[in-house]
Amino acid sequence: MERAFITGIAGFAGSHLAEHLRDKGWEVLGAEKSGVSLAHLEKVMGFIRVEECDIHRSEQVAAALANAKPDVVFHLAAVTFVPSAENASQKTLEVNVSGTLNVLEGCRGHAPAAQVILISSSEVYGKAPQEEMPLREDRVPAPANFYALTKLCAEELGRFYQRSHSLPVVILRPFNHIGPGQSPNFVTSSFARQIAEIEAGKREPVLSVGNLDAARDFTDVRDIVRAYSLAAERCRAGETYNVCSGRPHLVKELLDKLLDLTTARIEVRQDPHRLRKSDVPLFYGDYSKFRHAADWAPEREITSTLKDILDYWRGRV
Amino acid sequence: MERAFITGIAGFAGSHLAEHLRDKGWEVLGAEKSGVSLAHLEKVMGFIRVEECDIHRSEQVAAALANAKPDVVFHLAAVTFVPSAENASQKTLEVNVSGTLNVLEGCRGHAPAAQVILISSSEVYGKAPQEEMPLREDRVPAPANFYALTKLCAEELGRFYQRSHSLPVVILRPFNHIGPGQSPNFVTSSFARQIAEIEAGKREPVLSVGNLDAARDFTDVRDIVRAYSLAAERCRAGETYNVCSGRPHLVKELLDKLLDLTTARIEVRQDPHRLRKSDVPLFYGDYSKFRHAADWAPEREITSTLKDILDYWRGRV
Repeated sequence: MERAFITGIAGFAGSHLAEHLRDKGWEVLGAEKSGVSLAHLEKVMGFIRVEECDIHRSEQVAAALANAKPDVVFHLAAVTFVPSAENASQKTLEVNVSGTLNVLEGCRGHAPAAQVILISSSEVYGKAPQEEMPLREDRVPAPANFYALTKLCAEELGRFYQRSHSLPVVILRPFNHIGPGQSPNFVTSSFARQIAEIEAGKREPVLSVGNLDAARDFTDVRDIVRAYSLAAERCRAGETYNVCSGRPHLVKELLDKLLDLTTARIEVRQDPHRLRKSDVPLFYGDYSKFRHAADWAPEREITSTLKDILDYWRGRV
Repeated sequence: MERAFITGIAGFAGSHLAEHLRDKGWEVLGAEKSGVSLAHLEKVMGFIRVEECDIHRSEQVAAALANAKPDVVFHLAAVTFVPSAENASQKTLEVNVSGTLNVLEGCRGHAPAAQVILISSSEVYGKAPQEEMPLREDRVPAPANFYALTKLCAEELGRFYQRSHSLPVVILRPFNHIGPGQSPNFVTSSFARQIAEIEAGKREPVLSVGNLDAARDFTDVRDIVRAYSLAAERCRAGETYNVCSGRPHLVKELLDKLLDLTTARIEVRQDPHRLRKSDVPLFYGDYSKFRHAADWAPEREITSTLKDILDYWRGRV
């Protein structure tokens, strides 16, 4: 049995990854920042052991890794929401870059044989022109927001530890992932929650939306975390891989599919506050490098993912 | 008259840059970390105004820039000595990366029209194979030490602020620079100080050396700082330039030239503690991009530079 250590284990992808690894028979340990109720977390996910650990505190990270003695470290902890990253640049740098340094240093000191799966982001590519889609890993990154910039720095740290300290680091660049449990800061979760609230009579029948004409590369989070676990088994240290569906979907198309799943009569209204200033019209990736390495492809249909998201919110509003 | 603001103004390149700009008729302001005697500094360099400012303290950097209202910001403050960077990775990250963020944020907030000259390092290239010399700017960086890694992250920050916030940032990658005033942590300064001490009878006539077979691209610091000031006038924001001599010199050759400048009889002895583990045999750059942009070429002969270094130490031991 392999033993995994997941940073950011209570997060959206982190909790799905923990469940997936448990289902594969792994022992699952993790770290989560102070302020998250670990008692609650361990009750909900009875199978995991979680240490309170602020990722930017090197001594806490070192201690957690020394205790865990993991075979694989999945480093997911990060400030992830783009607008908040922009408004708190020092904090974002501290968590996303110093935090990654702590994880890599901690592995070097206490788990030098552990495979490190460093979760970066497709955002590192920045605003590529439409005709250059789908994006491949050899494109020179040009981050267009502060979150992406810190992810690029974290990648450079990972490559450095692989190159200079022979730490077996694999870097993954997931594109948009969606699924049950995601924060309503993200688009499909926001739509689904609003629909569930309208169905429950807790909201007037108006759905507030941002830019519907953006096309993005959406993958079910459960396919994404399956990719993370396969990366640990099959990918080459020092390499960087896109993880995505390889196909763009218009946000409008996802909204229409969600609306098809409800019988409520709903008016859609655009809210200027929901428009992100740096949107590009089309953004999707090429995952053939990862497919060849890990024999992975996304399996879940987008409609069933959207239904799961809606059902998740129906159970919560 | 232009007004310059130099971070790390008391450092080796910083103090030479301050003198050079003063000689060109600029007003020179600067920031230096706490612990450096600013009274002493202002006495020695009576023409400058220096604020105490720890570069990793965002509010201090912002205040210094708001007071200075510079036309050009030369950002030189950094942990620069490679071995110490390696042993204090969090501190190096804080100074070299968070510090750069503070300078860029401070400029954005308080001096958005100021030209920013970001001093990176040739070290970002890492261990390139001999047949790929001289190095050009389009080579993909692959830092081989922690100092270089933080410089690469600082570069990414600079490019990001140029791209996303239209801050006029120019990135320079100086190769080895030498001259009077450099710390004896660096090779020519170490040799010259030992020779001066031997001449003064303060040291037995044995010169302790590291690897003499490394060939590096050495430029006089006074040529280097002239390049920095020309970059502010002539280089394009968003671009990255090598600043170097374009020619490799063996460390042994420099040692021989120094020994030619003394009449003392000196035995040369290799000290294993002085060997850096990550040395590559040959490392030099191509500065044609900068030459075309700034109409710059190094002017000082290496022998006269070495004589200046030796005379500097003769005046101090």
